[in-house]
Amino acid sequence: MSRGVTDILYLYDRPAEPVFVPRGDNKVAFDVPASYLTDHYRSNAVEILSRFGEADVEKIPIKELTIPSIDFASQLGRRENFSLFIPKHRRLAGRLVEILLGMRTYEDFLSASVFCHDRVNPYMYIYCLSVAILHRSDTQNLPLPTLCEVFPDKYMDSAVFVQARDEANIVPAGSRVPIEIPRDYTASDLDEEHRVAYFREDLGINLHHWHWHLVYPFTGPRQVVRKDRRGELLYYMHQQIMARYNCERFCNNLSRVKKWNNWREPIPEAYFPKLDSLVASRAWPARPSNSVLRDVNRPVDEVQFDIQDMERWRDRLFEAIQTGAIQNDRGERVQLTEMGGIDVLGDIMEASILSPNMNLYGDLHNFMHLALSYIHDPDHRYLESFSPIGDPSTAMRDPIFYRLHQYVEEVFQQHKRTLPSYSPQQLMYSNVKVTAISITSNNQPNNTLSTFWQQSDVDMSRGLDFTPRGSVLARFTHLQHVPFVYNIEVDNQNNQNKIGTCRIFMGPKTDERGLPMPFRDQKNFMIELDKFTVNLKPGKNQIRRRSDESNITIPFERTFRNLEAGRPTDITQLDEFNYCGCGWPQHMLIPKGTKEGFPSALFVMISNFDDDKVEQDVQGQCVNAASYCGIRNKKYPDARPMGFPFDRWPGDEVNTLSQFLTENMRTVDVTIRHTNTVLKRSIAVSENNV
Amino acid sequence: MSRGVTDILYLYDRPAEPVFVPRGDNKVAFDVPASYLTDHYRSNAVEILSRFGEADVEKIPIKELTIPSIDFASQLGRRENFSLFIPKHRRLAGRLVEILLGMRTYEDFLSASVFCHDRVNPYMYIYCLSVAILHRSDTQNLPLPTLCEVFPDKYMDSAVFVQARDEANIVPAGSRVPIEIPRDYTASDLDEEHRVAYFREDLGINLHHWHWHLVYPFTGPRQVVRKDRRGELLYYMHQQIMARYNCERFCNNLSRVKKWNNWREPIPEAYFPKLDSLVASRAWPARPSNSVLRDVNRPVDEVQFDIQDMERWRDRLFEAIQTGAIQNDRGERVQLTEMGGIDVLGDIMEASILSPNMNLYGDLHNFMHLALSYIHDPDHRYLESFSPIGDPSTAMRDPIFYRLHQYVEEVFQQHKRTLPSYSPQQLMYSNVKVTAISITSNNQPNNTLSTFWQQSDVDMSRGLDFTPRGSVLARFTHLQHVPFVYNIEVDNQNNQNKIGTCRIFMGPKTDERGLPMPFRDQKNFMIELDKFTVNLKPGKNQIRRRSDESNITIPFERTFRNLEAGRPTDITQLDEFNYCGCGWPQHMLIPKGTKEGFPSALFVMISNFDDDKVEQDVQGQCVNAASYCGIRNKKYPDARPMGFPFDRWPGDEVNTLSQFLTENMRTVDVTIRHTNTVLKRSIAVSENNV
Repeated sequence: MSRGVTDILYLYDRPAEPVFVPRGDNKVAFDVPASYLTDHYRSNAVEILSRFGEADVEKIPIKELTIPSIDFASQLGRRENFSLFIPKHRRLAGRLVEILLGMRTYEDFLSASVFCHDRVNPYMYIYCLSVAILHRSDTQNLPLPTLCEVFPDKYMDSAVFVQARDEANIVPAGSRVPIEIPRDYTASDLDEEHRVAYFREDLGINLHHWHWHLVYPFTGPRQVVRKDRRGELLYYMHQQIMARYNCERFCNNLSRVKKWNNWREPIPEAYFPKLDSLVASRAWPARPSNSVLRDVNRPVDEVQFDIQDMERWRDRLFEAIQTGAIQNDRGERVQLTEMGGIDVLGDIMEASILSPNMNLYGDLHNFMHLALSYIHDPDHRYLESFSPIGDPSTAMRDPIFYRLHQYVEEVFQQHKRTLPSYSPQQLMYSNVKVTAISITSNNQPNNTLSTFWQQSDVDMSRGLDFTPRGSVLARFTHLQHVPFVYNIEVDNQNNQNKIGTCRIFMGPKTDERGLPMPFRDQKNFMIELDKFTVNLKPGKNQIRRRSDESNITIPFERTFRNLEAGRPTDITQLDEFNYCGCGWPQHMLIPKGTKEGFPSALFVMISNFDDDKVEQDVQGQCVNAASYCGIRNKKYPDARPMGFPFDRWPGDEVNTLSQFLTENMRTVDVTIRHTNTVLKRSIAVSENNV
Repeated sequence: MSRGVTDILYLYDRPAEPVFVPRGDNKVAFDVPASYLTDHYRSNAVEILSRFGEADVEKIPIKELTIPSIDFASQLGRRENFSLFIPKHRRLAGRLVEILLGMRTYEDFLSASVFCHDRVNPYMYIYCLSVAILHRSDTQNLPLPTLCEVFPDKYMDSAVFVQARDEANIVPAGSRVPIEIPRDYTASDLDEEHRVAYFREDLGINLHHWHWHLVYPFTGPRQVVRKDRRGELLYYMHQQIMARYNCERFCNNLSRVKKWNNWREPIPEAYFPKLDSLVASRAWPARPSNSVLRDVNRPVDEVQFDIQDMERWRDRLFEAIQTGAIQNDRGERVQLTEMGGIDVLGDIMEASILSPNMNLYGDLHNFMHLALSYIHDPDHRYLESFSPIGDPSTAMRDPIFYRLHQYVEEVFQQHKRTLPSYSPQQLMYSNVKVTAISITSNNQPNNTLSTFWQQSDVDMSRGLDFTPRGSVLARFTHLQHVPFVYNIEVDNQNNQNKIGTCRIFMGPKTDERGLPMPFRDQKNFMIELDKFTVNLKPGKNQIRRRSDESNITIPFERTFRNLEAGRPTDITQLDEFNYCGCGWPQHMLIPKGTKEGFPSALFVMISNFDDDKVEQDVQGQCVNAASYCGIRNKKYPDARPMGFPFDRWPGDEVNTLSQFLTENMRTVDVTIRHTNTVLKRSIAVSENNV
């Protein structure tokens, strides 16, 4: 009678189909108690349950429970869109998460989840179910299916779906042809901003952003929300996104992102998402060029604020930063300390329940998202929903996301400027010298990184309600790079073993005018590539590190499963590769570069582990992308300020990267060369093994 | 072997499903020659044809022909949108219509139509097929299915479709519940313009506009395009739409439509259509408030023009009007005569192939539509398609349609102002006096018209590709009125029988300020309610005419089939009620009125039939809505200028409607009273029989 806990994952299969419809290719079905049916189906209960309860369907028993009332959830309609940026939605989701976390046993949890399935908005449901699974001890090791398979509509051109439905209905499973998503479908290169759409619309990048918010929910039980250095990580993860995006812009002959600090002037950047919500059966609204922000008053969403509110919050934030202290909700001044200040500011910016004074500092970051997402219909007179910038799973597609976060970054940098510069003593590692660094890879000159386009497939059949079963593939074209190896030579001139943290960054050498990049700009564009612990024996040490071992990325197979390799398609048999999906996608580790080769500086530092180390046991935890995502329920695994050593304003005497170096650091010029050809996955994989 | 010509109508069933998929509830299938399959399916031909060729399917034999090349049709992709306003689309459609009209026999026509089915954009295909069926002698009497059943996506909230798909898949046919389309889904009353959305988004009104363009195609063989007084009818049909729309506005406390004559200033009216193209799997773009028109350059659509081009065409049109002559393409001056001038101007405005000088006068009306429809993406940088104003089947939904056509109307009125006023001699009918008029209806005071809301259903299952068969109903809420009777007393003081044309109009008595309406304004708001021939014996004549006999409307059942009455659902067994769908919908004959009663003037004129008559045999033709649609392949059945007697500027001495009257005319005050309740169709029908 008892089955495995993986059964709950069948709830991710076609989440908008009623819960009594059989699921998965194996034809299993939840044995839904008749009392669990919603009113709409209860009148035909016998007919419907017998219709879908075919004999060859394997039944998953569901315990009939008295479920706590979830009437509150109906405040968000089944056919509406859901966003974590909307306080009302956060509140509803938080309550549901608490209920799901509160179920005593797995059996009860499954039963409650089945009960909620047809009563809760499907987007909100999957979010809450995911947070609950990730944070319950009885399910926390379950591999969550990637959201792209559950809600493919959030990640690909709506035009794909009608083709997919054709293919699924006409062509038998097995003979079906993947449906290609054009690389350029949201705009053409006539729109300058479109040159970096491959980054903004990358599947892996958007999945990362979603997973980050799964791991760091805004609300819910305090033990779930309160995570080590959460506010600081909000700052750093987004700082790195901005550094990366700016590098991509430089590679595409675009200037750095102009921060969005004037909320009164028309916004030149347009975005036409061409996404359809399959649940809402409504298209995501577009933002035409030169839209103008207006005060928001949407009773249905319980959102009412003026641009002036945002301006006041902003001004108070700057005042806090410039006076070095915030005021908490008990009226006390709290210093923004050198180590802890950034975390406080991050909590304020994120406006999770950890914010020390919501009344005073408000909800700036979320409301910037919201105001933008309602720019086409600020008072709901046109009954329109929010645009993609209003949902964490789609926000990164829109160019304005980066102008918004360039401004958020500016706020944090203002604080960082108030902190003392690192002294050489803080930076150096006594008697440890980095004597040589290089990058090598197959068939490439040394210190050359190579990028190209690759095509990879995603199975979207789990998101195609009511179509015949069997895979239907959507084919993405995405950036990829040839795998490479860092070779680092370290001279440990101490006469004993030493431990160090090897920190690898890369940044552009010239600015958008082609002039050498001053260090105080360049430091903000340094992208973290890897960070790992090294044991240094006395004397020369040769360190060799593969690019796919990076501490910020998750493996390629977590974004694009290898569908050709005959992996199980049943949702409950997915193995580790979807586990802990938070992390930068491996295929986006390296910026695109240019045809001629984009000149960059590779930077390696060995820092003193005594100052870096965090004592904890992380056995069995996913640590793949710890730099961006932390480690679940553990401390952030690096005691230094995030972004170290580039998080501080440099001293007056440091104008170039080389002036910044101490002996335990080194840089080398590398070139990122882009080849404008598209390789299929199988070819790309075989050609590019190191 | 030979079957009836109705078989071709199965091509209207789920037009986006491949042609070899069985059609209709009866399960019939075209016996498609393998050579007709498109490349995409040819590789699996045997498997696919056997899969869909089940034994219990009745086969329609298809003769294998060598079809003339239709490669040109691929210039419009299968998944794109199609619009008659785009010259390229008109050209492609024209070529296809010629091919279909050119097929020698019905058998060949059917075969060619089957061949084209999967090779031509489905919207364009259905348009061309319909024009061909309507204009071929072997099919012209076939009842065309209403476009709303073929492409329901053009007529209803996209949110309906996902619900419909649910319902069709879960609930067995028979137990399914109609899916209600909210009356207010495109906006709320916070948007003033939304108060008349029930008019703009009315199913019947939009179907009328589409049918009008089917009957009057822009291009194609000259014998199809050249129709009697076509240009004048373009003027008059739209003039009446504007008169009606303005009356609806007055009833809703809105001022008259502001003509759209400044193409440089921001457009305050927004429109968020919330329509999805099921074929294109893309949402129709919205136009936010304060959008600004820009020059259009879209190579993919072969559309390139500047606002200045439109301004030049406009100025030349005004010059022609004000000098009383146009210049044709041989450089000759052609007088704009009293009777024929308006027809020439109509041809110029419509820019069909009848336009006498496209180079000089251009394509003003269509390009106004186009420029508006591309306002969000004038240079195609965002790869967006046109918005609803760019397609005749959806254009009337958008408030800007009426501002555009108020301006078109202004152009025609400028011409009308140059014509002599009607003299009393032209208006009177010697010794014929209208002595009394009134309106009566069930349970209503005399001279009171009553309106209310009614719910009626449309079967959308023919537009739901790949869902289980059987009806799925969409429930519209639309305006309706209590049927009524005109009672007219005419005194024929001649001592012989006379024939007259009874012309019935109605117009508002006061303007939007509540002041009495001056006649020179009021004449433009007079809406034609009916026109019919009367025989007048000497002495008193009592004329009784039912409202549903109107000469401008088509019966209610042509818009909303009576689905409850168990009529055949098979597409080929539809009877007359869908035949000749052009015409104003009966349920929209009377403006909404107001709760307190909207004061209107009913006007009746008996004109001299000797001056009205057109000698022709119209036996067997549909003449229901001849005033708006003409009679197919016949002369317009009224020799007077269209709109007579209100088409001319009045003499200086005429300031009020009563000053305009001659003895053969009469007016009476009527009140239009609106009850804000919603009745189901069955109730509404039974309660409101006269």
